[in-house]
Amino acid sequence: MSETLTQIQFVSAVAFNAEGLVPAIAQHYQSGEVLMLGYMNRDTLERTLQTGFMTYWSRSRKKVWKKGEESGHTQRIVEAMIDCDGDTLLFKVDQIGPACHTGAPTCFYRAANLDDR
Amino acid sequence: MSETLTQIQFVSAVAFNAEGLVPAIAQHYQSGEVLMLGYMNRDTLERTLQTGFMTYWSRSRKKVWKKGEESGHTQRIVEAMIDCDGDTLLFKVDQIGPACHTGAPTCFYRAANLDDR
Repeated sequence: MSETLTQIQFVSAVAFNAEGLVPAIAQHYQSGEVLMLGYMNRDTLERTLQTGFMTYWSRSRKKVWKKGEESGHTQRIVEAMIDCDGDTLLFKVDQIGPACHTGAPTCFYRAANLDDR
Repeated sequence: MSETLTQIQFVSAVAFNAEGLVPAIAQHYQSGEVLMLGYMNRDTLERTLQTGFMTYWSRSRKKVWKKGEESGHTQRIVEAMIDCDGDTLLFKVDQIGPACHTGAPTCFYRAANLDDR
């Protein structure tokens, strides 16, 4: 069922939003844990594919952000996927150190109590 | 390391974007497979928590979209997580049938060839 695209086809298939961005999910390639979600523009997506390391567009700092460039907590890509309508990317990555800037292994460390409905 | 929030705290922690939406990742609670990404507004997030079934805001149809309401391919939530800065949600779900409208088990069935860089 899965299809393989060339990198040019992959980038062409992306439906960037009005701000020129696409959400990119980083998932640990072994544990399957979802680590974080960041955004890429065409340039940082191409850098990610070319370098093999997750490179986001930082919306708050308005700059190219190679994940781990300061902390050393890089994300090497193992698999790059795009969804059916091209508006979300999913990267399976080899995460060095914690993914979250708080030091947590993943950014998703807070859960809702589902019993209190 | 993980924290549990009441549902009121959980909803209050969400940083909705300028359109009043937050991206919500659906991940299979057993396999760990990332199934899809949709968007929720405050109302559909509250419906999701209250009903226990993933309910998105359809940006294309501009309406409340209970996943599977037509196809039967519902997503019952098992865990609801929020990330460090509150701008992404992650739901671990029990997916009935395929997650993707194409009939694929997940919306992420296309991969880039990483060897052609």
